[in-house]
Amino acid sequence: MSVTLADAKRMIEAGEKKAAEIGQPMNIAVADAGGNIVAHVRMDGAWIGSIDISQKKAYTSRAFDITTKDLAEHSQSGNQFFGIHASNNGKIMIFAGGVPLKKEGQVVGAVGVSGGSGEQDHTVAEAAATAF
Amino acid sequence: MSVTLADAKRMIEAGEKKAAEIGQPMNIAVADAGGNIVAHVRMDGAWIGSIDISQKKAYTSRAFDITTKDLAEHSQSGNQFFGIHASNNGKIMIFAGGVPLKKEGQVVGAVGVSGGSGEQDHTVAEAAATAF
Amino acid sequence: MSVTLADAKRMIEAGEKKAAEIGQPMNIAVADAGGNIVAHVRMDGAWIGSIDISQKKAYTSRAFDITTKDLAEHSQSGNQFFGIHASNNGKIMIFAGGVPLKKEGQVVGAVGVSGGSGEQDHTVAEAAATAF
Amino acid sequence: MSVTLADAKRMIEAGEKKAAEIGQPMNIAVADAGGNIVAHVRMDGAWIGSIDISQKKAYTSRAFDITTKDLAEHSQSGNQFFGIHASNNGKIMIFAGGVPLKKEGQVVGAVGVSGGSGEQDHTVAEAAATAF
Repeated sequence: MSVTLADAKRMIEAGEKKAAEIGQPMNIAVADAGGNIVAHVRMDGAWIGSIDISQKKAYTSRAFDITTKDLAEHSQSGNQFFGIHASNNGKIMIFAGGVPLKKEGQVVGAVGVSGGSGEQDHTVAEAAATAF
Repeated sequence: MSVTLADAKRMIEAGEKKAAEIGQPMNIAVADAGGNIVAHVRMDGAWIGSIDISQKKAYTSRAFDITTKDLAEHSQSGNQFFGIHASNNGKIMIFAGGVPLKKEGQVVGAVGVSGGSGEQDHTVAEAAATAF
Repeated sequence: MSVTLADAKRMIEAGEKKAAEIGQPMNIAVADAGGNIVAHVRMDGAWIGSIDISQKKAYTSRAFDITTKDLAEHSQSGNQFFGIHASNNGKIMIFAGGVPLKKEGQVVGAVGVSGGSGEQDHTVAEAAATAF
Repeated sequence: MSVTLADAKRMIEAGEKKAAEIGQPMNIAVADAGGNIVAHVRMDGAWIGSIDISQKKAYTSRAFDITTKDLAEHSQSGNQFFGIHASNNGKIMIFAGGVPLKKEGQVVGAVGVSGGSGEQDHTVAEAAATAF
């Protein structure tokens, strides 16, 4: 398996720690190489609308092997991927918070974070990914 | 329970009164802390397309603890949450009319209104929320 | 309009009263001639899964001008309408609790109730419909 | 909050332990009073089709305050809730593995487990719920 549950828990713990530092409760999800969720947590007080978003940011980031922060740029009106959010039966999130996980140059999974500003979400996702 | 049916009826009554003043029939919905609908009314002559919208504005406003008027700004092309309307399986409304309900600093529910202009919807939602 | 908001509120009040008598909190919804919801309430403590069901029982009952209790019989495996629940994009409920509203021999709307046993739901829906 | 993240993690740990004893890797999810997911894990080797199922069993069990094992009986062809799986936009699971969480006689959340036979899923869900 590309990303084990032990990996996911370690990453989520790192993400929770960063979120606590920032003072913004988050939803944090980890997906494996198949884009399928390995684990998810909603920190106490985090937005309920972000449960779905965190899981889908993880999927999206693995689905296209890109941060959703970068995908966001390509997906604005007028840009090359505008409209991509309508694909994959509603599973594509085009705003910051999704970060791919790499092992030996290969993308083997992704982290998705939602619960604050785009910048906060991305920061927490990076912290989680670093623990991989 | 965060928002009782008695609370919801009182808020809806206040919303109906404001809508009558404005002269624009509305759909008015109230959600609880879990984002689940407590009550909904469609005033005589109000748009049938707004039944769904009012209920989803209430959900959205609780899901992200924000007015949908403010969420609208963040969700325009080029802004940090552009694409958020594709999340939560079609339940996210990103235009004015949703207002969170607060009790002791905590968001414990939301009102959603639809049936007129964005400004009218927001005004009626505020009137309903004030009755909480 | 086939069913006014005043009609719907009067019916819902009658339904709430019957549900209180039975001692089972209910979701009660009223639809008009177009199958569109006029009003809905969730009594304190009623199942959150029944919000959707009550609204869809009202739709279903008007959609086919039949109680959902009777539709249930036709919709069991082996019977003539088995599979009808897969139609109308998930809006068809095939168990008791939906009752059509008649005016001068014409069906002009419906009540949908969910929150207890099929028998309880049907009893409360009948009580609400009688107030029409 | 009805079910904290700490509660959810403790329950999931208990569920993982029971699943390991049985020798069947599982997906385990916990929902709060609003039916919204608090945490989810997929044990290494567990079915990817069960990610969604475990989360929806938790929702269902809270939505109707019942084990999905009991709901299954009511939902077979010929019984009072046959067709309930068509409600709630695809979120209703009508087979064993969902167990409500009670606090002082009130249902305040639920556990959902998927990955093995119905009996195995229910056993692991019970073990997780007991840790609440």
